[in-house]
This record gives sequence, C-alpha cells and structure tokens, in this order.
Amino acid sequence: MIYVTPIGTVHTDAKEKIDHGWGQVQSKIVIRPDLKDGLSGLAQFSHIIVVTYLHEAEFIPEKHLVRRIRGRDDMPRLGIFCQRAKDRPNPIGITAVRLVGVSDDTVTVEGLDAIDGTPVLDIKPYNPAFDRRDDAVVPEWMDEIMREYF
Amino acid sequence: MIYVTPIGTVHTDAKEKIDHGWGQVQSKIVIRPDLKDGLSGLAQFSHIIVVTYLHEAEFIPEKHLVRRIRGRDDMPRLGIFCQRAKDRPNPIGITAVRLVGVSDDTVTVEGLDAIDGTPVLDIKPYNPAFDRRDDAVVPEWMDEIMREYF
Repeated sequence: MIYVTPIGTVHTDAKEKIDHGWGQVQSKIVIRPDLKDGLSGLAQFSHIIVVTYLHEAEFIPEKHLVRRIRGRDDMPRLGIFCQRAKDRPNPIGITAVRLVGVSDDTVTVEGLDAIDGTPVLDIKPYNPAFDRRDDAVVPEWMDEIMREYF
Repeated sequence: MIYVTPIGTVHTDAKEKIDHGWGQVQSKIVIRPDLKDGLSGLAQFSHIIVVTYLHEAEFIPEKHLVRRIRGRDDMPRLGIFCQRAKDRPNPIGITAVRLVGVSDDTVTVEGLDAIDGTPVLDIKPYNPAFDRRDDAVVPEWMDEIMREYF
C-alpha cells in the first residue's frame, strides 16, 4: 500500500465529467501553501503535465477491467490498460495542457479534463524529449473516440 | 490521504538510477494476476505511458522544493514542479516508452527510466491527441540536461 497526498486542487466551472469539449476549459490549480515555492520557474514552459487523482472514479473489475469503449457495440472489447477511461485500478489522470499563467500559489491552464475539486498529485513540465513521440501509432477506434474530446 | 496499490513491478538489468542512457534499456513489467486481462488490446499501440512509484525517492522540502538542477552551479534555481527530478512531493514517474511486446502478464518496453523492482501504478496507451504537443517550448537549460538522458 502506497500513500500519496494532494499538492493542490482543481478549480473550474466544469462541475461534472463530460466526454468532449475539454480543450476550451480553463482551470485554476491552487497549490498548498507549503509547496507553492515549488512553482518557481514553471512559467518558462508553454505546456505542463497535470497528474490528478480522479476522486469520483470507481473501479469494478467485472465491469471495467475489460469492456467495450464507452459501452458502444461497434467498439472492440479492450482491457483498461489500453484505454484512458477514469475507472481504472489506480484512478490517476495524466493530461498535457497549455500553461496560461502562474501567480503566487495558482497555476492557470487550458484543456485540463478534470472536474472542480479534483485533487492534484503532481505537476511536471512538458518536455518533448520525454513526452513527445512523433512516431506513435494508435488504432483507428481511438482516433474516432478522441475526435471531439478536446 | 489517498492510497494506491501497485498493478505490477518493473524487472530490468538496471539496478540503480543513472542520469543518462535510459533509451536503450529494455524492461519487463509484470502485471498482477488479477489485472492481467486488462492488457488485452494493448499490443495495438506503438507506445505506452508507464506511471511508476519511485520508491527510492525521498522528498526533503529544504533540499528539494527549490534547487539548482543536478546541483550544478551553472543551472538556475528552480522549483520542483518545473523539474522531472524523482525527489518530489509525490514521487510519481511518467515515461512515454516504446512498446516492444505484450505476452500474458508481461509488457516489454524500451526506454523506461526506472530501476529494477520499481512499483508500477498504471499503464496507459500513448495517444497523440492527449500526449503530443507539437508547439511545446522548453527553456534552454532543460534541452541541455536532457541531451544524454535517453
């Protein structure tokens, strides 16, 4: 068993989960007072990775370990580890977002797919040397379900 | 307080942390028997994101919250949230790696910067729609320290 503690919280007008249109959502991440100095220098980056704990997720193995994407009959049956669905063994979300600004204890971002009140576990700079894989290939079904997500 | 449980473990010849050359390292991630069905379909992807718990990390605020990168005097003083260093409030690692193969309970990958025995918290498909940011800009110092990492 491993314990983690939130470093901050998401504040946004998005009060519930949606399956599309996250790209336009602006969010503020408010960092714990004792950790806010850890933001220094972050504004030099154009994008960051936000690691969230999807606190409303619930993993029920019989239902979520293997399933059709979004319950659609025209989608293949797939394991949770090839999906980005929130109901997973550890409901940890990872999203690369555009950094709008940093001020004192608050990080403003665009495109974070997390509802108001979501605990944040980590913030990392988006670094193409780590995070950008130009040769990455995905199956056709994933292209299709992502079309309207952001 | 939030608790998470490993979904599997990293097996690799890399027995200790190195600061460069991870790109050639092959690792096997062995998934828990009760979760191995969750791998079905993963082989359709060329790259995956491995979320690790960096169990040998230790976050000492006075030392790690703000510091010079790699202790080098020629580097700026920076907050932990604009670094990828392991000693962070929640030592969660995120690496996009090439998927070599999937068989039964084992996922073989190339380029995972995690030592032998590292607990794995999640595996996600690398999806360019989420993870690839072509317009991402990083400061010069980060380009420099990454030059030999992979």
